[in-house]
Amino acid sequence: MSTMYSDNLERREANYAPLTPIDFLARSAEVYGDRPAIVYGDVRRNWRDTYSRCKQLASALRRIGVSSGETVAVLLANTPEMVEAHFGIPMAGAVLNTLNTRLDAETILFMLRHGEARVLIIDTEFAPLAERIVAERPDLVIGFVADVAPGVHPAFAEALEYEAFLETGDVDYLWEMPSDEWEAIALNYTSGTTGDPKGVIYHHRGAYLNALSNILEWDMPKHSVYLWTLPMFHCNGWCFPWTVAARAGVNVCLRKFDVKAVFDLIRTEGVSHFCGAPIVQSALANAPGEWREGISHRVAAMVAGAAPAPSVIARMKEIGFELTHTYGLTEVYGPSAVCAEQSDWQDLDQEDLSKKMARQGVRYHLQSGVTVLDPETLEPVPSDGRTVGEVMFRGNICMKGYLKNPSATEEAFRGGWFHTGDLGVLMPDGYIRLTDRSKDIIISGGENISSIEVEDALYRHPAIAVAAVVAMPDQKWGEVPCAFVELKEGCQATELEIIGHCRLFLAGFKVPKAVVFGELPKTSTGKVQKFELRARAGSVRAIDFGD
Amino acid sequence: MSTMYSDNLERREANYAPLTPIDFLARSAEVYGDRPAIVYGDVRRNWRDTYSRCKQLASALRRIGVSSGETVAVLLANTPEMVEAHFGIPMAGAVLNTLNTRLDAETILFMLRHGEARVLIIDTEFAPLAERIVAERPDLVIGFVADVAPGVHPAFAEALEYEAFLETGDVDYLWEMPSDEWEAIALNYTSGTTGDPKGVIYHHRGAYLNALSNILEWDMPKHSVYLWTLPMFHCNGWCFPWTVAARAGVNVCLRKFDVKAVFDLIRTEGVSHFCGAPIVQSALANAPGEWREGISHRVAAMVAGAAPAPSVIARMKEIGFELTHTYGLTEVYGPSAVCAEQSDWQDLDQEDLSKKMARQGVRYHLQSGVTVLDPETLEPVPSDGRTVGEVMFRGNICMKGYLKNPSATEEAFRGGWFHTGDLGVLMPDGYIRLTDRSKDIIISGGENISSIEVEDALYRHPAIAVAAVVAMPDQKWGEVPCAFVELKEGCQATELEIIGHCRLFLAGFKVPKAVVFGELPKTSTGKVQKFELRARAGSVRAIDFGD
Repeated sequence: MSTMYSDNLERREANYAPLTPIDFLARSAEVYGDRPAIVYGDVRRNWRDTYSRCKQLASALRRIGVSSGETVAVLLANTPEMVEAHFGIPMAGAVLNTLNTRLDAETILFMLRHGEARVLIIDTEFAPLAERIVAERPDLVIGFVADVAPGVHPAFAEALEYEAFLETGDVDYLWEMPSDEWEAIALNYTSGTTGDPKGVIYHHRGAYLNALSNILEWDMPKHSVYLWTLPMFHCNGWCFPWTVAARAGVNVCLRKFDVKAVFDLIRTEGVSHFCGAPIVQSALANAPGEWREGISHRVAAMVAGAAPAPSVIARMKEIGFELTHTYGLTEVYGPSAVCAEQSDWQDLDQEDLSKKMARQGVRYHLQSGVTVLDPETLEPVPSDGRTVGEVMFRGNICMKGYLKNPSATEEAFRGGWFHTGDLGVLMPDGYIRLTDRSKDIIISGGENISSIEVEDALYRHPAIAVAAVVAMPDQKWGEVPCAFVELKEGCQATELEIIGHCRLFLAGFKVPKAVVFGELPKTSTGKVQKFELRARAGSVRAIDFGD
Repeated sequence: MSTMYSDNLERREANYAPLTPIDFLARSAEVYGDRPAIVYGDVRRNWRDTYSRCKQLASALRRIGVSSGETVAVLLANTPEMVEAHFGIPMAGAVLNTLNTRLDAETILFMLRHGEARVLIIDTEFAPLAERIVAERPDLVIGFVADVAPGVHPAFAEALEYEAFLETGDVDYLWEMPSDEWEAIALNYTSGTTGDPKGVIYHHRGAYLNALSNILEWDMPKHSVYLWTLPMFHCNGWCFPWTVAARAGVNVCLRKFDVKAVFDLIRTEGVSHFCGAPIVQSALANAPGEWREGISHRVAAMVAGAAPAPSVIARMKEIGFELTHTYGLTEVYGPSAVCAEQSDWQDLDQEDLSKKMARQGVRYHLQSGVTVLDPETLEPVPSDGRTVGEVMFRGNICMKGYLKNPSATEEAFRGGWFHTGDLGVLMPDGYIRLTDRSKDIIISGGENISSIEVEDALYRHPAIAVAAVVAMPDQKWGEVPCAFVELKEGCQATELEIIGHCRLFLAGFKVPKAVVFGELPKTSTGKVQKFELRARAGSVRAIDFGD
């Protein structure tokens, strides 16, 4: 429609630029070029040099023939090269595909094939994987990062050493702005429990906006010091490589999570912010007090992946770490909801506070919405804290779609919402609370049992460090809850004691019928692998309600 | 081009929402509904109620026939209704046109006509203006805000009282998202010194992004308390109505700037942030110390409109207010560059620090660029601190264009940059420094004289409170500098003394040939009205170099 507010007022170069997080790097290099960008052992690099290296990476990739819209995969630890990949690869117009370093060769080969990667940059720590990949994909260009181990492994005979490769790039390379902010910036495979992994595509606009949302939620000041406890291969480190660049902050890199190393870095580098799954937070909360000595500054911790246990919430508060609980999944760029703290929560006792904080919360700052809908009708559930529905997101912080999978994309976005597959309720204050991942619901004698509720009861037992509950087939009831528990160091408990404990808190049909002791299988991000437990419990039911 | 990263991956409702600052209000109402949004005398209103009132305003406007893309003008002081106008009017799909309350009726009538306003909301304080407007524009729907004066003035006989008008609106009105983030949200007339005012159009995308930039520059935490010392009619209060909503902060409204009232509000309401022209900052800096008693919290002040004088910078630091110097103009949504402070500046002595801080700086966080170019060739000037060029901006925080003025729009955006008309240099550290607004340059015997340089010299005189220099016609030299000065209370100085003082700091040809004493004419935002001084000095030269 032609109106006075639209005629001759089209977008033009002077007043329109695609939103891209690459610009955060460019600005930090321009304005805060001398400030530290990367800290990693002896490596100290400022924003100017980091920008130059990213330009070189982009230029070097173009020179070996990588063109716009092609995939460049990386199999890297949380090292400086991984930060550079988050900028240098999209600066070549390419799409960054970060691979989970804990996966088996078969799965990685699937992803490299499906994502049509032209180049793979790999850390020499993962030489055995590289060997298999090179054998199966002789066409793939391999670059290697020889940080912990030299690149003399036969897998790297034909490969390009990263620093030498960078040298081939032009430090003044005029990197490409995406021609449209809707262009892909990253490809992240979900670790689905069934079927082939799906390739989740992020675009520049979403990456930009979620990077800013992270700042807004954390009130994260300029020059914050961010510690890489969360793998960057997981949802692009929840978008934090871009967030840190937007703040001209410091990336404190860390190859391997280690509790003592984390406290040492918090002390020596003045780390102010870090992220991690509950298992990470729990390990820090339960560390010996003397490891924390000398740390008196404010430290903010973000937890997601699962609700933090009440004991972890309490303990983090005790040691003076400020915990923010966020919720999301790969399809929404990592954190996309937050349990936003209200001022009057400070008056609550620890138990009530923990209950409030364990909820998944409200939409993230620049996300349009998160709510709980009936998965069939897409009608909102009442905010009664009881009616279960499916958690759904909408807005700019939802993926572009699944790669080469239009039917899964359609299904995921059915009705104008992204369907998470997670079940939840809407609380009277508007906060969502997960009752269960839909796969995790246990149906016993026609009654639904929330595995989270059973796990909560287990966590109240003083000897239990980690607990997970899955369905176990049962002749009479169809399914019954089966508990898997890790005990705290030096603690003991019997199956009968634990079942007796659960009876105090749960209706009879919800009490686990079996308790299995031992270390729980976890993903690289500390999430308990329930599919593995289900296999152990002999449960093979495929529940696809709302999934 | 069809690629695997674009096929079947178009934007859809679930994963794309237009960027609009209205959403900041919606989220604050959802998440922080009980928190204070508005403080104004006895009026205390939370975010939920503020959102409801804005929905009512939008609904009421629709009911009287306002439709999408129409203009609604307001002539309001910094009252709660002015905050509401920033949301309720665009929520009706309309465009907000804030009018400068200090303008004469003739100019306002021009703007109402040119902007094609259907509705005008006016404060009863401006009844004489309303009378004239009603007489000339009987077709205009008038709403009045009877806050300081009842609406019994004859001008309001046919007008709608604001609160009653709100009552006609639906509190559950489903407000309109803009169908495109490129749609207009606001119309702001520039107070050009020659010719008719130009109507600068803001779009939702730019308003959203600059509101966020304000947060990023100030490291502004959630729930900040913002005091309205800056008129909201000026570049939409530098986008701060939207910024405060994005932070679920508090709008402390203030009808009239008054130094003592400001300190009282800082103390009683815990004001943490405010903005103002140098004259505002200067008035606060020079206030009696006892007015500040009891204020011990951090207060951040943003200054723009002109570089703050060194003495103001020093004094603000002394009284513990943190000053941020930003630069911009109506066409770039207010602040769009910032003199970003570097950590090593803290080691500078006060004079060197003031020199650094008086510069206009670097691009704002979410703006793409600000630089100094040769206005003819558009080549960058060397960053030598000496070569003068024109300051230019580019990026999402540039206006959509001028209303019904395609030739001015084309000219302003020539060559892919927004031309500010301000002259400046690029410093070796990449910061821009204004040498002069192009209109303000004085050409004497073929030499350019920067009026800013002469003003700087004048400000070094201990008796001078405010100084402004303009060109005065001269038989021999063409033009010579003429100084207008306000002396500090209780201070005295003669013309000869001041000229002698200037000789200490300036080359002979730059020394003012005349000094005029007395109060300087200022705009409502405290900017000295040089066009008025030029008239007094008898200078009528129209300099349109790069303008």
